[in-house]
Amino acid sequence: MTTNEKALLLHEQWNGKIETTSKCRVASREDLALAYTPGVAEPCKEIAKDQEAVYKYTIKSNTVAVISDGSAVLGLGNIGPHAAMPVMEGKAVLFKEFAGVNAFPICLDTQDTEEIIETCVRIAPAFGGINLEDISAPRCFEIERRLNDLLTIPVFHDDQHGTAIVVLAGIINALKIVKKEKESCRVVVNGAGSAGIAITKMLLNYGFTKIILCDIQGILHKDDPSLNWMQKEMMNFTNLQNEKGTLADAMKEADIFVGVSAPGIVSKEMVSSMAADSILFTMANPVPEIMPDLAKEAGARIVGTGRSDFPNQVNNVMAFPGIFKGALEGRASQITEEMKVAAAIAIASLVSPEELHDENIMPQAFDERLAIVVSEAVKAHIR
Amino acid sequence: MTTNEKALLLHEQWNGKIETTSKCRVASREDLALAYTPGVAEPCKEIAKDQEAVYKYTIKSNTVAVISDGSAVLGLGNIGPHAAMPVMEGKAVLFKEFAGVNAFPICLDTQDTEEIIETCVRIAPAFGGINLEDISAPRCFEIERRLNDLLTIPVFHDDQHGTAIVVLAGIINALKIVKKEKESCRVVVNGAGSAGIAITKMLLNYGFTKIILCDIQGILHKDDPSLNWMQKEMMNFTNLQNEKGTLADAMKEADIFVGVSAPGIVSKEMVSSMAADSILFTMANPVPEIMPDLAKEAGARIVGTGRSDFPNQVNNVMAFPGIFKGALEGRASQITEEMKVAAAIAIASLVSPEELHDENIMPQAFDERLAIVVSEAVKAHIR
Repeated sequence: MTTNEKALLLHEQWNGKIETTSKCRVASREDLALAYTPGVAEPCKEIAKDQEAVYKYTIKSNTVAVISDGSAVLGLGNIGPHAAMPVMEGKAVLFKEFAGVNAFPICLDTQDTEEIIETCVRIAPAFGGINLEDISAPRCFEIERRLNDLLTIPVFHDDQHGTAIVVLAGIINALKIVKKEKESCRVVVNGAGSAGIAITKMLLNYGFTKIILCDIQGILHKDDPSLNWMQKEMMNFTNLQNEKGTLADAMKEADIFVGVSAPGIVSKEMVSSMAADSILFTMANPVPEIMPDLAKEAGARIVGTGRSDFPNQVNNVMAFPGIFKGALEGRASQITEEMKVAAAIAIASLVSPEELHDENIMPQAFDERLAIVVSEAVKAHIR
Repeated sequence: MTTNEKALLLHEQWNGKIETTSKCRVASREDLALAYTPGVAEPCKEIAKDQEAVYKYTIKSNTVAVISDGSAVLGLGNIGPHAAMPVMEGKAVLFKEFAGVNAFPICLDTQDTEEIIETCVRIAPAFGGINLEDISAPRCFEIERRLNDLLTIPVFHDDQHGTAIVVLAGIINALKIVKKEKESCRVVVNGAGSAGIAITKMLLNYGFTKIILCDIQGILHKDDPSLNWMQKEMMNFTNLQNEKGTLADAMKEADIFVGVSAPGIVSKEMVSSMAADSILFTMANPVPEIMPDLAKEAGARIVGTGRSDFPNQVNNVMAFPGIFKGALEGRASQITEEMKVAAAIAIASLVSPEELHDENIMPQAFDERLAIVVSEAVKAHIR
């Protein structure tokens, strides 16, 4: 039986990968009087007096909504809210298993930006945070930005920031090996959707200055009328020389390539044209932009992918559980750029100098220290 | 320490009465590949092909949303969505503990009828049913009716129907004792909000024909311009003689009194004016319309209350867990009047002829047969 066949069978047996479990016994009239009526009126009255008490007496303190409209699921595209459910349940599983955070999947039967925003605002009372998932660009940018303005609980679009945090962690460690300075590195990010934009922003915030964004049309430049509003905004901070050309043009003499795009679109020639000690993160899923062995043959020094069967796996699960654990424990109202950079540095720090080498720049996804160091890094940056 | 003090302390210790728990282990890369990426794509693709498969592969098959706007909570009134959270979590606990149904509290930060309706529709994909809770009348009637039209999952307002089902169960058993026919009984329902209206409808559906609805103004009649639209609708089926007067007038020669109103508003004189072998359900919470001992002194034959410290407790927990268990297992698209009547008969049936007497017309709330017989009754009436 293949993994896929086994996965389908298991999903049928699970019939839902999470369940809601009671933390209190209800086996007697006294139990009922304490957990429900009449005793439940007491915490209700406390919260009615002081809304902050909701964090003291309810699940809000440790519960995240995993919200999707099913418009951009994994490699599956716009499959809608029902078909997205297994992914969102899986995400809820990971929140609990990796960081002890409760999470519930909310799949929305609308793909209208305004309706998504207002629905999230309306259901917010039960939740301590909102994890947006698999919502297509550029709507995801506006939804996240507006929700952060409207709500006092943290809102985090994992496809953007989770990926960006873990890629930055990998780049931090890769640069330690090749001994290059971030300010002098030429970076090419291929893919100008949610992940590519977020990675670019994160690298800018960390101190990279020479970044070229590309998509299927080639290098993004400010004269291109087809850019969406977010891509236009990015032209203020990237490609400051207003270069034009193909991805191959962009990659010439590049120090770092980050791909969140499509399988096989990077050739050996392109890799060979990069600067010495080149670093590639080829994260197209499940088939990378170029396979690691081919990239190495073409002269790449360090290669990371999204896959667990190659070295240097970039996996969001290293970031998002700890990010929310820290934000919830510290009662952060937002997840700021400072927190994200601190999380990346914390993830990178788990690979000790002795362990660090070309084929080992990332911690293991199951390293139990991850949620702890990431949550502490987040908490240390709550203002 | 009083029960209330203990309840508050426990709520702080629980810090949320439910949690989301993973049904699948994620301790290795292989686990991750099966529960999450890449294996999770398989059930997603199956659901994308056939939306019905969402019941096969996800929590939808056994999960209820407990939805409230906090506008009419217990005896607390309009305390808003945050303060309502402990009640909704408690309800979620009861769903799981009494019937094995997963339930998640969704407290809405809006009290606008249209916004509540559209929000429920948008979040419906994750849920197999919607339990509306503590939403004030008459908005609750429209919300439930419209949602039943808009959605293909069952929608059930427990404050209405849960109470009505359990009251009907009690009346069925009480009539066995006093040997009266439902068609000839004069019934007074005091309280014309969500519960009173639902009880009246249920009794009509069961075959009662002579019902008088009262509220704080006295007998409701069709010439009263202050009735809301639902109360007006009820005037087509109740008080067909167009009686006018006080509650005391209504109760003269009544066989059955059902109170879902206010403490102490029924006097011994009113009870004495009722027909022989009178039956009273005095369910004002926590202090009944008349205390059972006083009612008995005044000549009442059978008295039920909402309290566990008197005989004949009417408790919604006898109905709603089994109602949803049956509706989910049988994939009902609605919870029909037939199902509700069948549930009431099933509840009543748990008190055997040998056990049945004036002080024992209701099963015990913790009778483990309840969820089973109620769910079977519901399933037997799915069309």
